Amino acid sequence: MNQSKKILLAHGGGGQLTAELIAEVILPAIGGQDASSLNDAATVAVGGGQVVFTTDSYVVQPLEFPGGDIGKLSVCGTINDLAVSGAKPVALSMALILEEGLEVSLLCRILTSAGQAAKDAGVTIVTGDTKVVERGKGQPGITINTAGVGVPLAGANLGFERVEEGDAVLLSGPLGQHGLAVMARRGGLGVAAARKGHYVSLQSDCAAIHGLTSAMIETLGSKVKWMRDPTRGGLAATLAELSAATGRNIEIRETDIPLDPTAHAVAEMLGLDLLNVANEGKLVAVIASDAAEKAVEILADHEIARSSAVIGTVGQSDDVPLVEMLTHAGGRRIVQTPYGQDLPRIC
Amino acid sequence: MNQSKKILLAHGGGGQLTAELIAEVILPAIGGQDASSLNDAATVAVGGGQVVFTTDSYVVQPLEFPGGDIGKLSVCGTINDLAVSGAKPVALSMALILEEGLEVSLLCRILTSAGQAAKDAGVTIVTGDTKVVERGKGQPGITINTAGVGVPLAGANLGFERVEEGDAVLLSGPLGQHGLAVMARRGGLGVAAARKGHYVSLQSDCAAIHGLTSAMIETLGSKVKWMRDPTRGGLAATLAELSAATGRNIEIRETDIPLDPTAHAVAEMLGLDLLNVANEGKLVAVIASDAAEKAVEILADHEIARSSAVIGTVGQSDDVPLVEMLTHAGGRRIVQTPYGQDLPRIC
Repeated sequence: MNQSKKILLAHGGGGQLTAELIAEVILPAIGGQDASSLNDAATVAVGGGQVVFTTDSYVVQPLEFPGGDIGKLSVCGTINDLAVSGAKPVALSMALILEEGLEVSLLCRILTSAGQAAKDAGVTIVTGDTKVVERGKGQPGITINTAGVGVPLAGANLGFERVEEGDAVLLSGPLGQHGLAVMARRGGLGVAAARKGHYVSLQSDCAAIHGLTSAMIETLGSKVKWMRDPTRGGLAATLAELSAATGRNIEIRETDIPLDPTAHAVAEMLGLDLLNVANEGKLVAVIASDAAEKAVEILADHEIARSSAVIGTVGQSDDVPLVEMLTHAGGRRIVQTPYGQDLPRIC
Repeated sequence: MNQSKKILLAHGGGGQLTAELIAEVILPAIGGQDASSLNDAATVAVGGGQVVFTTDSYVVQPLEFPGGDIGKLSVCGTINDLAVSGAKPVALSMALILEEGLEVSLLCRILTSAGQAAKDAGVTIVTGDTKVVERGKGQPGITINTAGVGVPLAGANLGFERVEEGDAVLLSGPLGQHGLAVMARRGGLGVAAARKGHYVSLQSDCAAIHGLTSAMIETLGSKVKWMRDPTRGGLAATLAELSAATGRNIEIRETDIPLDPTAHAVAEMLGLDLLNVANEGKLVAVIASDAAEKAVEILADHEIARSSAVIGTVGQSDDVPLVEMLTHAGGRRIVQTPYGQDLPRIC
């Protein structure tokens, strides 16, 4: 990436441009750090034990949306990063950047929601920070950073290197609800969708998924090989990362992907690909094939993962590994990494 | 605090209004959390061991200033929060919020500076996050959140409850260099000060102080009773916190406070009280009186703390405890908690 360039919104979209920014600018500049630096979560040796450590900043607009708000999102998102790393979330930090002029009542609603989400998840917010910045032009805002620490779950053994040909790819529920719900609330889309009768029930899936991940690891141990929550860039970006890092083809079947009719209709109407839309309460997991059925059973025991399904299979190694989808029509199409962003920021 | 109110810039100033916002809005809203929630750093039981965990967001403008930049500041600030908690800093997270239009070359300079500061401090940046937000009106910016994890130092035994009458109050160097250097670069002040020949040498004291804290604890153990880095709100806010939390009077002696002539001149010119100006490379410590001399010796062994001094004494318990200063003129004045902010944001 050329140093004379400027940062584009698309650099934050979670697709190829984000990956380039991190690999070509951020990691070399920080330098001298571990090569695995700036993963979603890192395992750190602290005082004789192992701690899993992660961070995420949340800049979503609007601050409140159907099914959630920036407070709940910031708690669930960081819990989920720990969860898919095979950790039990223990404690969170919460750093607030408040814009001058922000209504204290709105701040209260958002923090109450964050506190409730933490309580529901059995996680404590233990430390924080508060800054106030000059009022800008737009809607007075809140930016929240949550970092989290957790402990590795006994029996967790996750990693790209564990993924083999024939492994099953699981998805814990329908795609796109979070991204589309935020979009709907954000622009004219809410109105457009409402006209077709869809807007009313379009809700973010914002939820903590550590119950799903721990239940699977507890029962299936090392048969759970890799996990991720498909946030920015959606399922497409998640599978592209899996394919690139393992050097293996991935095949998914469109007919097996759980579908939310409302999200589907809204996405169709807008010409958006649900595979690219962000989620915040979903799990993608690679499971040994002989444990896949049991894994679906375990997931479907949870309210937030009733429609879990095996959606695909890990294929052979390849020089140019691809993610392909068998379509409803019986064709095949390549699932591409989103390049920049084709959606407003949703986290 | 009335819920119909709005957030003011002064709520972020580190003084009384910040304390009220945290105590009356943030903590009750988050609710159900530990009463000690949202301290600067928290000790968390993780996997059989103890981890010290902290977070801080940095929103300073300008991004680069004499003696440092937001990258170095974000690394040193979080290291310092761990250090004054009696911990050895181990790992940092770094979450970036970039404004659309930001020059990649500026981002590189800032991250290189952050990486160097981490390397110098023997701390690894292990995990991160990158978001991009729409360009606003002002200078394209960077917001950095760093969270940090560390391990409690053997022999560290710090707490307000350990502070007793007769204990010595130590300061590791002159006040106000960071806050005034940022101000000088920020507004017309730079020009004004330069006219008097002072601007050139006004540098932020931005530095990691974990070398100071660990050296003291290693040698003096539990004779080190309490530590803080006097950032937002300056020495005045730090001592006000100490006085309020211990219920004890504190007396400091103006003649014993180390002075940087340039910072002093700039502050005089502007009518600012150096006690209220922020620092980012200084240490305030309460030490048992029989170890105070040795503590000054230990601190002065370090380049960044050559002018360390005992500046005051912890007094009796009082219903309305006060911080008082014996002035150069031989009088006494009450050192008040800053109410809001009388300076631009400096972290």
